[in-house]
Amino acid sequence: MKKCRISVLVSGNGTNLEAILKSVEEEDIPGEIVVVISNVEDAYALVRARNHGVEARWVDPKAFPTRADYDRDLVRILSSKQVDLVVLAGYMLLLGPEVLRVFPLRVINLHPALLPSFPGTHGVADALAYGVKVTGVTVHFVDEGLDTGPIIMQEAVAVRGDDGLDALLARIHQVEHRLYPEAVRYFCEGRLRVEGRRVFID
Amino acid sequence: MKKCRISVLVSGNGTNLEAILKSVEEEDIPGEIVVVISNVEDAYALVRARNHGVEARWVDPKAFPTRADYDRDLVRILSSKQVDLVVLAGYMLLLGPEVLRVFPLRVINLHPALLPSFPGTHGVADALAYGVKVTGVTVHFVDEGLDTGPIIMQEAVAVRGDDGLDALLARIHQVEHRLYPEAVRYFCEGRLRVEGRRVFID
Repeated sequence: MKKCRISVLVSGNGTNLEAILKSVEEEDIPGEIVVVISNVEDAYALVRARNHGVEARWVDPKAFPTRADYDRDLVRILSSKQVDLVVLAGYMLLLGPEVLRVFPLRVINLHPALLPSFPGTHGVADALAYGVKVTGVTVHFVDEGLDTGPIIMQEAVAVRGDDGLDALLARIHQVEHRLYPEAVRYFCEGRLRVEGRRVFID
Repeated sequence: MKKCRISVLVSGNGTNLEAILKSVEEEDIPGEIVVVISNVEDAYALVRARNHGVEARWVDPKAFPTRADYDRDLVRILSSKQVDLVVLAGYMLLLGPEVLRVFPLRVINLHPALLPSFPGTHGVADALAYGVKVTGVTVHFVDEGLDTGPIIMQEAVAVRGDDGLDALLARIHQVEHRLYPEAVRYFCEGRLRVEGRRVFID
């Protein structure tokens, strides 16, 4: 069985990247991370990648006249590495159609809420402000909308009466670090089947 | 401690009414159901109420020139019965400001999804069609929006790979029949504290 070739796109600290790196090293995921790409020069995720002996690149969006040009450069890198799966892990830019059309149903993202509730960049704070009693974590395929693609996995996280943002974030991160490597594993095992908007794990 | 005087508004079968009637009879809820009101003449919920010796009334919306007039008649009945809590249990009309301004934070509703996801009348089918892996049940205070009021309780229900609408509905109903009486109990025990959009159970 051919190993799944994974690229992880990051912008920040990279704790989810770390969880995936660990799962790959422990051979829970039948794949390898062939390149980590950041749009932010000093993202700590780049350091994490290198610490694990994984190639890490900063690609500066400002070096390209348009976002589409930047995305085409990502495609060039991903294609040159023969990437099977693109994993967004705290990547703070929206991927444009230039990438998504070349990698249909091959880009996945993690969202810290139970989509379709609380899309966007403040999923945890928004859930807390709304006053929900249950929020959670979603892993989904990326389409051209904002957090709208077919859902691969979700797990609920209870909001407690005394929860502030930090306490709730901490519990959500715990779930993320378990759920995301599991979703990557299912993808690499070829077990995800998409029918319309529903994703089945065979 | 004065018993909480409850009215339940219904339109259909009334399985949630049945669950609350049972909780009242078993004295889990420190209250009594003083009147059940239906906007539908042949709602089976009316039969259930009478079977438990509870007053059951059909109020025909068509007998009133406007919905506001109908709602004012509801207020007249609820006030004459000195109702503390109005429980919507499969009541298929939107309550207008005529009722809500007289009973602020004293009207509660049950919704078969994790609000704010999938509001409206097809919460379960909509969740299934969207492809979520986690849905659930919400009990909330009713405000003038559609399923937008402060959330009292939520419980997650996992969507299984082979779930059709009936299977998922059955598991959601099980949770409803447990959660709704519990929320009514908290209300009647005076344990619900609302701060902005957050509801705390003391």
